[in-house]
Amino acid sequence: SVSSTPIRATLFPGDGIGPEIAESVKQIFKAADVPIEWEEHYVGTEIDPRTQSFLTWESLESVRQNRVGLKGPMATPIGKGHRLLNLTLRKELNLYANVRPCYSLPGYKTRYDNVNLITIRENTEGEYSGLEHQVVRGVVESLKIITRQASLRVAEYAFHYAKEHGRERVSAIHKANIMQKTDGLFLKCCREVAEKYPDIKYEEVVIDNCCMMLVKNPALFDVLVMPNLYGDIISDLCAGLVGGLGLTPSCNIGEGGIALAEAVHGSAPDIAGKNLANPTALLLSGVSMLRHLNLHDKADRIQNAILNTIAEGKYRTADLGGKAKTTEFTKAIIDHL
Amino acid sequence: SVSSTPIRATLFPGDGIGPEIAESVKQIFKAADVPIEWEEHYVGTEIDPRTQSFLTWESLESVRQNRVGLKGPMATPIGKGHRLLNLTLRKELNLYANVRPCYSLPGYKTRYDNVNLITIRENTEGEYSGLEHQVVRGVVESLKIITRQASLRVAEYAFHYAKEHGRERVSAIHKANIMQKTDGLFLKCCREVAEKYPDIKYEEVVIDNCCMMLVKNPALFDVLVMPNLYGDIISDLCAGLVGGLGLTPSCNIGEGGIALAEAVHGSAPDIAGKNLANPTALLLSGVSMLRHLNLHDKADRIQNAILNTIAEGKYRTADLGGKAKTTEFTKAIIDHL
Ligand SMILES: CC(C)[C@H](C(=O)O)[C@@H](O)C(=O)O
Ligand SMILES: CC(C)[C@H](C(=O)O)[C@@H](O)C(=O)O
Repeated sequence: SVSSTPIRATLFPGDGIGPEIAESVKQIFKAADVPIEWEEHYVGTEIDPRTQSFLTWESLESVRQNRVGLKGPMATPIGKGHRLLNLTLRKELNLYANVRPCYSLPGYKTRYDNVNLITIRENTEGEYSGLEHQVVRGVVESLKIITRQASLRVAEYAFHYAKEHGRERVSAIHKANIMQKTDGLFLKCCREVAEKYPDIKYEEVVIDNCCMMLVKNPALFDVLVMPNLYGDIISDLCAGLVGGLGLTPSCNIGEGGIALAEAVHGSAPDIAGKNLANPTALLLSGVSMLRHLNLHDKADRIQNAILNTIAEGKYRTADLGGKAKTTEFTKAIIDHL
Repeated sequence: SVSSTPIRATLFPGDGIGPEIAESVKQIFKAADVPIEWEEHYVGTEIDPRTQSFLTWESLESVRQNRVGLKGPMATPIGKGHRLLNLTLRKELNLYANVRPCYSLPGYKTRYDNVNLITIRENTEGEYSGLEHQVVRGVVESLKIITRQASLRVAEYAFHYAKEHGRERVSAIHKANIMQKTDGLFLKCCREVAEKYPDIKYEEVVIDNCCMMLVKNPALFDVLVMPNLYGDIISDLCAGLVGGLGLTPSCNIGEGGIALAEAVHGSAPDIAGKNLANPTALLLSGVSMLRHLNLHDKADRIQNAILNTIAEGKYRTADLGGKAKTTEFTKAIIDHL
């Protein structure tokens, strides 16, 4: 209820369209009486003139303290030797699992109408180790690292998630026929965890075959768990099935129950500041954050308002073929609460 | 014409349904007066009782001599420490580019009707190096190797292919925002080659975004060139868009103009020997082989007969929702020649 102590949550509006869509989230959450008090920090491409920083210690500490946060899109500082901000956040906050629910939006027609799956991506190692070097001129190599610890951790999260959310099956995605040791270890860990969840079906699917099955019949899948790069690829593929990254939420889970939800689409500098952006991905990510906080009533209420607004079709932003401004779409959602 | 000296080509029927679909190819090629004399070799999972071998020197030498060949599906000998036969062939014959045309089949309905693209996959290195080891207990790594030589070679092939086939654009697929050195080198090589082909448009697309675009609108793509694993994933994804691996051809190109065309689907042991298999992928791979030999008239004639038979819809194998036996489908194609 409104009178109880509000929950503090960090908000990183991000770059480009970030501030506009973050504003939409704040308004809708407020209208729905969500007991959240936002702690806003600037993280992004522009150097903050006061701090001369892209990412301050205070910003990181805010998430560490609050344990929940929501982030908008962040562009990447170019030509400054900076690591991607997204990766820095994952690393600094030890965000080990990236969870992306992906479902067909009622009334928003794509080629698929039967998508309802969750991709869970290992988010800290694999092909993202950053370890690369030139062996001799013209020969470079990069290292993919798979550890038992990180594989067990993400597998555990996937099965736990499946159980909590009443899901029937977990599919581990891999290429262990080629990378027998690395992906083989990943699978071994998934199998170990699977044994502890006898009520949840477990299967293993080779990534190439998985992508073919996904485009032929995505209804074949339920929860998918996989190493970092495969998760990067498959989560975007799945988003494409239901309309793209502008419509799909994402939430990063860290050790000790930290959750940083995020819109994974770009910062769209071309339409920034024009009141044209679609806030849906950030809103649904906010909903994921609420679910993480066990605020399911609020989550349901907001999610339904978003989906109903899109289904009704009267107010849609330009990316969905409509003419509504960000603020009009936001207002329509509030009216649907 | 029939009277000229026939071209010798190697045929590896392979395992499972391989012999049946190879038989279909032989009959149709004969009916179309294709001036090819097949040199058949057994390569596959069963040990040849006479040679005690999965893959004889004579089989390899046959392709090296003939410079063209066609292969059916090969299962993998299990539990004998064998490398996958497909990989062994790629390595032994230095098959550096895997070319997969992928187009919507008229009259065979999928969710997509506008697919017409070619994936060209680097076939010798990358994530398929086979270099993996355990660093310490619970920590394993695998090496992805990218070389200037192999990257230039496949990029050169892709642009050459685009030019020869009147294609407008080559897209290099990568994840250089993460693997800056390995995929960065791959892109650098593509750019170098692109400069030599000013009439062909060149673009670079990150793999996750590429997969999303492919499922949203595959008509955005023309020729795609990419490192090994991305090619493995994207070629299967694309096959899924038009109906699956049972319908899409593949051809491997080696140094000195060797071409080994292949059906990339499995050996389907469950239906082997039952006259139920669909020979389309192997047939269209045979057509790719004919084009490689510049036998375009024969290639067109056979390809049209296949496509017309499928479009007509009277004779379709079970995988395409029909009731035709392999031999009935084969006869229907011959009637359409
Ligand atoms: C921007 C990029 C580094 C990032 C990734 O590869 O993880 C993005 O694609 C994502 O999925 O969040
Ligand atoms: C069977 C497997 C080793 C092979 C690969 O990964 O290359 C297959 O998927 C292919 O695309 O030919």
